[in-house]
Amino acid sequence: MILVGLKHLISIRDIRKEEILNILDESKEMENILNSKKSLKIMEGKILATLFYEPSTRTRLSFETAMKRLGGSVIGFTDIRNTSVMKGESLIDTIRVVSDYVDIITIRHPCEGAARLASEYSTVPVINAGDGSNQHPTQTLLDLYTIKREVGKIDGITVAFLGDLKYGRTVHSLCYALSLFEDVEIKFISPEELRIPKEIVADLLEKDVKFYETETIDLEDVDVVYVTRIQKERFPDLNEYQRVKGKYKLTLEHVKDKDLIVMHPLPRVDEIDPRIDNLPQAKYFQQSFYGVPVRMAILKMLLE
Amino acid sequence: MILVGLKHLISIRDIRKEEILNILDESKEMENILNSKKSLKIMEGKILATLFYEPSTRTRLSFETAMKRLGGSVIGFTDIRNTSVMKGESLIDTIRVVSDYVDIITIRHPCEGAARLASEYSTVPVINAGDGSNQHPTQTLLDLYTIKREVGKIDGITVAFLGDLKYGRTVHSLCYALSLFEDVEIKFISPEELRIPKEIVADLLEKDVKFYETETIDLEDVDVVYVTRIQKERFPDLNEYQRVKGKYKLTLEHVKDKDLIVMHPLPRVDEIDPRIDNLPQAKYFQQSFYGVPVRMAILKMLLE
Amino acid sequence: MILVGLKHLISIRDIRKEEILNILDESKEMENILNSKKSLKIMEGKILATLFYEPSTRTRLSFETAMKRLGGSVIGFTDIRNTSVMKGESLIDTIRVVSDYVDIITIRHPCEGAARLASEYSTVPVINAGDGSNQHPTQTLLDLYTIKREVGKIDGITVAFLGDLKYGRTVHSLCYALSLFEDVEIKFISPEELRIPKEIVADLLEKDVKFYETETIDLEDVDVVYVTRIQKERFPDLNEYQRVKGKYKLTLEHVKDKDLIVMHPLPRVDEIDPRIDNLPQAKYFQQSFYGVPVRMAILKMLLE
Repeated sequence: MILVGLKHLISIRDIRKEEILNILDESKEMENILNSKKSLKIMEGKILATLFYEPSTRTRLSFETAMKRLGGSVIGFTDIRNTSVMKGESLIDTIRVVSDYVDIITIRHPCEGAARLASEYSTVPVINAGDGSNQHPTQTLLDLYTIKREVGKIDGITVAFLGDLKYGRTVHSLCYALSLFEDVEIKFISPEELRIPKEIVADLLEKDVKFYETETIDLEDVDVVYVTRIQKERFPDLNEYQRVKGKYKLTLEHVKDKDLIVMHPLPRVDEIDPRIDNLPQAKYFQQSFYGVPVRMAILKMLLE
Repeated sequence: MILVGLKHLISIRDIRKEEILNILDESKEMENILNSKKSLKIMEGKILATLFYEPSTRTRLSFETAMKRLGGSVIGFTDIRNTSVMKGESLIDTIRVVSDYVDIITIRHPCEGAARLASEYSTVPVINAGDGSNQHPTQTLLDLYTIKREVGKIDGITVAFLGDLKYGRTVHSLCYALSLFEDVEIKFISPEELRIPKEIVADLLEKDVKFYETETIDLEDVDVVYVTRIQKERFPDLNEYQRVKGKYKLTLEHVKDKDLIVMHPLPRVDEIDPRIDNLPQAKYFQQSFYGVPVRMAILKMLLE
Repeated sequence: MILVGLKHLISIRDIRKEEILNILDESKEMENILNSKKSLKIMEGKILATLFYEPSTRTRLSFETAMKRLGGSVIGFTDIRNTSVMKGESLIDTIRVVSDYVDIITIRHPCEGAARLASEYSTVPVINAGDGSNQHPTQTLLDLYTIKREVGKIDGITVAFLGDLKYGRTVHSLCYALSLFEDVEIKFISPEELRIPKEIVADLLEKDVKFYETETIDLEDVDVVYVTRIQKERFPDLNEYQRVKGKYKLTLEHVKDKDLIVMHPLPRVDEIDPRIDNLPQAKYFQQSFYGVPVRMAILKMLLE
């Protein structure tokens, strides 16, 4: 048991730094196995339930791939219209039932706290695959893994977050996780309307993390630029949305000849100039791929 | 071949008592294997089709779990909007096509008789996973298995059915199955509007099964209380529904200190006081779990 | 590598005749293995993604069956409402992401050219499972396989196409494929409104394929009659639709005592008299079954 005391993975805040490092190490082993094209049987006979109360291609397919690469199998649902939820069954009852069927559960739910609640009633490990605007810890771990693999280290780096810093849960969780490492500096680049929330700022201040806030894209001395999608529905005024969107789009000029990597949790719409896709700096598809080894590591560690 | 002459499982009425006992014995072996956490390969290379023309989490996930625990795999659909049914394909044609792909089929369909019809055109065994208000034989078998495991016997017991006894197909099928055993007594507890239908009563009379009908919850000398959901849509008058629902809710007082077990086919809404969940008498989640070994047994026996 | 130079399967026009013959040979081996009920492990640890942007039971289930019969596993989606497509993700991004997860992709999409586009961005082989009214090459290959298995040869045969020859992509692709063989004759039987398009005719003329067009069903000296569904939405006038539909329905009289086989891509509605189902000439369910060995062969050859 490498994850001392960890039975579920609900929030990145539940995990100590040593445990995060263990997960990143295990992820590297999983990546090596994937690259060797060897077929694994670690999870032979084991079943993962993917309970998706809300749409998500990437996260679901990535978890399913991870489980199947480990030799296990998957059951689940992706559409609550076809489930007994529609007959009025409570989340707690669904979890009680499903946790008696399977070996491990991953859940995505629109309500904050749903995964935590699920873990309290489940007889098997529960992984939070996103609960509303709250937590999505496997995303944070694959973000950290991407930085470690592509920058080479996490300690001492400078990360710029770009775009919607107010609503993006991936940004908030990654900020927290980065604060566990040494000498990390953070640059928040966003329009006034979408500034990083006060509680995140307070958290960073408390932990003595150096950070700056700015409205201008300047990626000098930045190791990682983490781009997020600016959503139309956040703006009461469409003209304002169009103005902001154009101003916070990452262009070729922003990144070329710079020694940095570009990350994005995906899906993206048009916040990154497509010509960046072919630059060596573009790591968002690599990042998406890393979701598989990281989730393999998590499944393996929680079931050991 | 243990199920002499049984190629499909369409109705509990098609199975003789010896066959039921064989299924219950095989289910116990499957439960032992599940508990030992050993991985099975009995169904390696075999495929189950789950054709769900109607929503159902529990039944579908439980069948899929059963097949995967046996080492087999699953294909199917859960939403007819995404199938060629929408292009006007008949059930018969779908069955002809799918039965040439797979080794065994389980079907849920809103129309009575659909599973029987499917079995007539299928080249592989068909299991009825519910055809409208008609039959759901694997539910009946897991109900019997629960009684055998949790009460210790089926002969000689007293079963109280509580709630909607008019529309509940699980109640009707279980009544029939119980009538095959020795000295079973049945107590029907329901509002006037939801009394057990005359044909079930006639059946019990013919088989000399002792039974009572009452409107009052009294669980003295009862071994099993089988609770069902009272559905709002059965009542033209909402006040009447509220009155009935309150009166037929199982409370802590009804069951505490009694030597009985509480069963429910699930999903439940609020017909059982949640405080009962923690009593040793509450067996409805155990009952739901038993769906897996029972369905493993059925899949194995039909494919042997 | 038997499919010299073939990395993807997008259009039947991409494949040379020798490659088609190789696929048909490999399909026969797969059929033999299926019939022997042996469990294969060729694809153990390998994952197929089924990306279905449009409904299809038969094609999806048949691909999934093929992959599972080979010992592999499957991830995917069948309903774009539950995917990040709804968040505005481009097809290209979805393909980039998914192709990093899996070993091979099959895609169905409503837009012509979608599969070709996907293949240009995928890092793994892509199989077109239908792109709008354009191509569906695995259907064409299973049609050819059916002819070879049930007539015994493809060279020198006469094929009648019946029904909607204007919109049916299966007819157009099969015409092209047949033109690669020796001395094939084609008879187009359709109402005036649904005649075979000029570009198909031009293609056949160029390749010196003998063909006839007629409005009358006459199956004298025909080896294969390939029936298609006439769709109501093609007719502005409902009476006209009814008249045409009745006139182009295949009846018992058309086929009995004739030495021919009846094919249909399915699903069918009422364009074939159901009494034909029991005649030895009816091969449409056999044809549907052949989809499994043919797709097994294609998966195996593309992954080798």
